[in-house]
Amino acid sequence: MNLALLGCGLLGGSLAAAWRKSGRLASVSGFDLVPARIQRAVTLGIVDRAATTVADAVCDADCIVLATPVGSMGSLLAELARHAPENAIITDVGSTKVELIAQARAVLGDAFARFVPAHPIAGGALPGIEHASSDLFQGCWVITTPLEQTQADALNQIEANWLACGAHVERMSAQEHDRIFAAVSHLPHLLAFALVQLVSSQPDGARKLQFAGAGFRDFTRIAASDPAMWRDIALANRSALGPELAQFRAQLERLQAAVDSGDGQALERLFAEASRVRRTQNFGAGGGNHDV
Amino acid sequence: MNLALLGCGLLGGSLAAAWRKSGRLASVSGFDLVPARIQRAVTLGIVDRAATTVADAVCDADCIVLATPVGSMGSLLAELARHAPENAIITDVGSTKVELIAQARAVLGDAFARFVPAHPIAGGALPGIEHASSDLFQGCWVITTPLEQTQADALNQIEANWLACGAHVERMSAQEHDRIFAAVSHLPHLLAFALVQLVSSQPDGARKLQFAGAGFRDFTRIAASDPAMWRDIALANRSALGPELAQFRAQLERLQAAVDSGDGQALERLFAEASRVRRTQNFGAGGGNHDV
Repeated sequence: MNLALLGCGLLGGSLAAAWRKSGRLASVSGFDLVPARIQRAVTLGIVDRAATTVADAVCDADCIVLATPVGSMGSLLAELARHAPENAIITDVGSTKVELIAQARAVLGDAFARFVPAHPIAGGALPGIEHASSDLFQGCWVITTPLEQTQADALNQIEANWLACGAHVERMSAQEHDRIFAAVSHLPHLLAFALVQLVSSQPDGARKLQFAGAGFRDFTRIAASDPAMWRDIALANRSALGPELAQFRAQLERLQAAVDSGDGQALERLFAEASRVRRTQNFGAGGGNHDV
Repeated sequence: MNLALLGCGLLGGSLAAAWRKSGRLASVSGFDLVPARIQRAVTLGIVDRAATTVADAVCDADCIVLATPVGSMGSLLAELARHAPENAIITDVGSTKVELIAQARAVLGDAFARFVPAHPIAGGALPGIEHASSDLFQGCWVITTPLEQTQADALNQIEANWLACGAHVERMSAQEHDRIFAAVSHLPHLLAFALVQLVSSQPDGARKLQFAGAGFRDFTRIAASDPAMWRDIALANRSALGPELAQFRAQLERLQAAVDSGDGQALERLFAEASRVRRTQNFGAGGGNHDV
């Protein structure tokens, strides 16, 4: 496969390195809005050819990967509608699916059948292609959300690429995908951002943060994430995130009543159920320390 | 010092081991409502003498440490009012202070002046004295919340014990303590419990949890904590926890409006502030992986 990598960051770089290591790639061309990132990708041996435009990157590609932040994928798709080779498969690594698919449907025309929406549940503690790893996807989930029109051959090739680098592949609808990740990824990020911002903006915020311990550290680790990327994700997935947030707020309303009235039974019941679930699950077994 | 350890768990065991290692203890007697725990403490060499009652444990103690869950400390204090030797210092390791001090004031009489409320911000990934470590408090904060009546000598001796085992000691009012830990410890625990219980109770909860990654794992790590212990903490500190929870709910109301209306600017502003704060702080440097 000749791969065109659009977006030379941690995830795209790891994808190219992993797919190449598993013998699925003949060549990799790379493009990024920041030229220094492309050069770094070439220096690292992840990208063979530095492209100067999207059109240049994809000119001889069999497979095009969108690996930019979700908010930039819409305009990339519009460029691909003009420049993607006729039989090239287009896929992505974005954290939200419904809106991206709608954008792809609106601009890709016939090429929409060769668009394979995908989401590898992986990431690393540090951003940037210099932290890319060909092992990043070992044991991770990769979700594909094919449409009725999606060509079976295109879907199978992308899934085979992921399986070849040690990932588990699961197909589901884009709607289900967005609902799941609203609950287990996007909402926790929102809550972590919200708590850190709230505490730090309180009059005694600095004093409070001085004594925050390991519990706070782990709870808020994801609040160090990139703000623009998470703005894009929250916006792109707001139709699923809004209802999950509303449900969580209703849950907190019940907890507030229990705390204020000193209802120990209600608190213990909820805590016990959560503790039982949390102890019996082994989350995020693969995929490094972060995921998006 | 002859120490009486009331409550032979991870924290009490680590305290006895750490204070002994730093040369501050001559002997340790131990009591626990679960006799097997006392035996384990003796077998591990942390406790020298297994006591059969509270009265027996404290009969020749210079220093008595309450190291049970917060909810049991009130009744222990009542026993100490009857049985504590006249000059023994009484201290504790509880996560909440205002309510405990009120209980102590109500029952201890003259001995209240020798009560040194304290809270080591430390813990371990696994409960039980078999996981106790004399190094647990290295680099940790220990908060003391002395009262006007607290004897300076008692306070100094307890603080010296903590300093000798590598902890940083900070004095503050019990009110400030409870406000700080409501925000940076008790509220995050509540939120983690709330999210896990909510997601797991949804009709598609099992499916959602199947795809939860490293972000969810770390965010919810503290939801594996002991439900009864956290019920006690939430109840004991509800006068500080209630207002912090209310402020957080107001924060989420603003976020809901931003998500629902697609206000990317408001989202990015909040995320960026949180991310900046989170990246520049080094939380929980000492004290293992957990803290209560």
